[in-house]
Amino acid sequence: ADAAAAQAARARQASLTKPPGSLGRLEELAVFMAGWQRLERPRIDKAKALVFAGNHGVCAQGVNPFPQEVTAQMVANFEAGGAAINQLCRASGADLTVVALDLDRPTADITQAPAMSEPETLAEMRRGAEAVSAEAQVLILGEMGIGNSTIAAALACAGFGGDVQGWIGRGTGSDAAGLARKADAVRRACARHAGVQGLGILAALGGREQAAICGAVLEARSRRIPVLLDGFICTAATAPLHAADPKLLDHCLVGHVSREPGHARLLEAMGKTPVLSLDMALGEGSGAALALGVLRAALECHNGMATFAQAGVAGG
Amino acid sequence: ADAAAAQAARARQASLTKPPGSLGRLEELAVFMAGWQRLERPRIDKAKALVFAGNHGVCAQGVNPFPQEVTAQMVANFEAGGAAINQLCRASGADLTVVALDLDRPTADITQAPAMSEPETLAEMRRGAEAVSAEAQVLILGEMGIGNSTIAAALACAGFGGDVQGWIGRGTGSDAAGLARKADAVRRACARHAGVQGLGILAALGGREQAAICGAVLEARSRRIPVLLDGFICTAATAPLHAADPKLLDHCLVGHVSREPGHARLLEAMGKTPVLSLDMALGEGSGAALALGVLRAALECHNGMATFAQAGVAGG
Repeated sequence: ADAAAAQAARARQASLTKPPGSLGRLEELAVFMAGWQRLERPRIDKAKALVFAGNHGVCAQGVNPFPQEVTAQMVANFEAGGAAINQLCRASGADLTVVALDLDRPTADITQAPAMSEPETLAEMRRGAEAVSAEAQVLILGEMGIGNSTIAAALACAGFGGDVQGWIGRGTGSDAAGLARKADAVRRACARHAGVQGLGILAALGGREQAAICGAVLEARSRRIPVLLDGFICTAATAPLHAADPKLLDHCLVGHVSREPGHARLLEAMGKTPVLSLDMALGEGSGAALALGVLRAALECHNGMATFAQAGVAGG
Repeated sequence: ADAAAAQAARARQASLTKPPGSLGRLEELAVFMAGWQRLERPRIDKAKALVFAGNHGVCAQGVNPFPQEVTAQMVANFEAGGAAINQLCRASGADLTVVALDLDRPTADITQAPAMSEPETLAEMRRGAEAVSAEAQVLILGEMGIGNSTIAAALACAGFGGDVQGWIGRGTGSDAAGLARKADAVRRACARHAGVQGLGILAALGGREQAAICGAVLEARSRRIPVLLDGFICTAATAPLHAADPKLLDHCLVGHVSREPGHARLLEAMGKTPVLSLDMALGEGSGAALALGVLRAALECHNGMATFAQAGVAGG
């Protein structure tokens, strides 16, 4: 981020008609945006949302109560405008693109083999990168993929260690037996692929949408486009980047903390403070799209408020 | 609230294309709105924000680093569109009205006398009630008044008891000596007016904007208009209503939890869960206006999403 622009934005915040610091996180968000956009007064005229969808061989382990066909059905729902993410993007003024990644070709079962080969992984990363519009001023990332909370737990566990159980949650609605199967699958997958590092984690334990998210994050980084990550699955998708170098995620905010119990633990491990905490656990980019509203409000205050001098208010 | 409309809204939520409960607080907000608007699909076409401003005799005790003139200066800033609340209302689509309550006539110093007489208190409550538009579908309430975080601490202490220190915070920016003067003033005021109850608390320890907020809350209740309260000062203003009957606040959400340390304690005592937690401490209705965006998003999902049957998605 550009230190001079961030400093100019900080100075502007101090001049606005409010007690210093009283807009709390809104001030930090405005300064963050200023740094990445290299503008004292950052703008969001064009917000893009990308939702990547993929299918996962690990579903063979009975980790999800829904059939994999639901992934394609939900993609059709996104395209028809009927899902939560459609409403939330409309509400927050984001332009949504859904990218279905070979849904008829699930990745390999991570308990048996690496999810993807290295060339496949790089190809999905490239698809993610190519989906990023150069003119976007902020990028919302989300995902859809039956079984991918198991993938997220495996990525988090490989990236950050700790007990498997702490990375496991109900996802789309697993019962106790389903949770036990998830934990067992993650344990076996992590044992099979023990020792993989950095982006190797992504090929061994990830999935197509996880690779696409990593590609989009890197592309946004190179274009200095700030990113709003969504919940547990989206954040966990970036664990291989964090393992390679935490700085690769400096331009990423996390829109919300999910009800999925591994998310708070993951955010703490990654040093990220979520914008919202609304007990949501849907994915699709829903928490990130909702947080865009807060980000817009932060910039409205930053750019639109009068200074003490302009308003003739004492105390500046 | 209307139980049948709330139940119909709950049933609709269960039919929408998402895992049950996965929109978390957004689902609760939609059901809440349905109950108060008596509509399975509640709407926000017209959102109103009211900011009441008043001055306080307790400033004679040196409880605030700013002169009381700042209240009128900030009212002028609201009217010119330069304050945070103007930007936040524009961002969330709320129509803002500012009501200055005899700023040249501060209330009495609560350490010496009751803030207002009973007729004065009732007159300010009536002004608050009269400011509520009958056609509003949601009402945001906020306040401005140099010295009123001291008034808020006194109201909270009288309403809920506990140690004075726990209700005291930096407000607009008190230093340690200022904090000590605030705590001392609140202790003396509460001792002087010990034994006042219900709305008597409002006359003894409140202020004009606090009375107007109480009047607006009651008017909204009678018109079944859901309310978004703002932070510590706005919430504390309703403590006398809570003391009279907690049900008088059933139609009130609290937009955010303030950085002001008494607010979390007050919300717990009142059984209210804030929508946002963004380390803000500005007042003006700013946290409530920001929360309106979340409320709108909740209704966009509730009203706009496809059902499992409509979308042909398995699992409904």
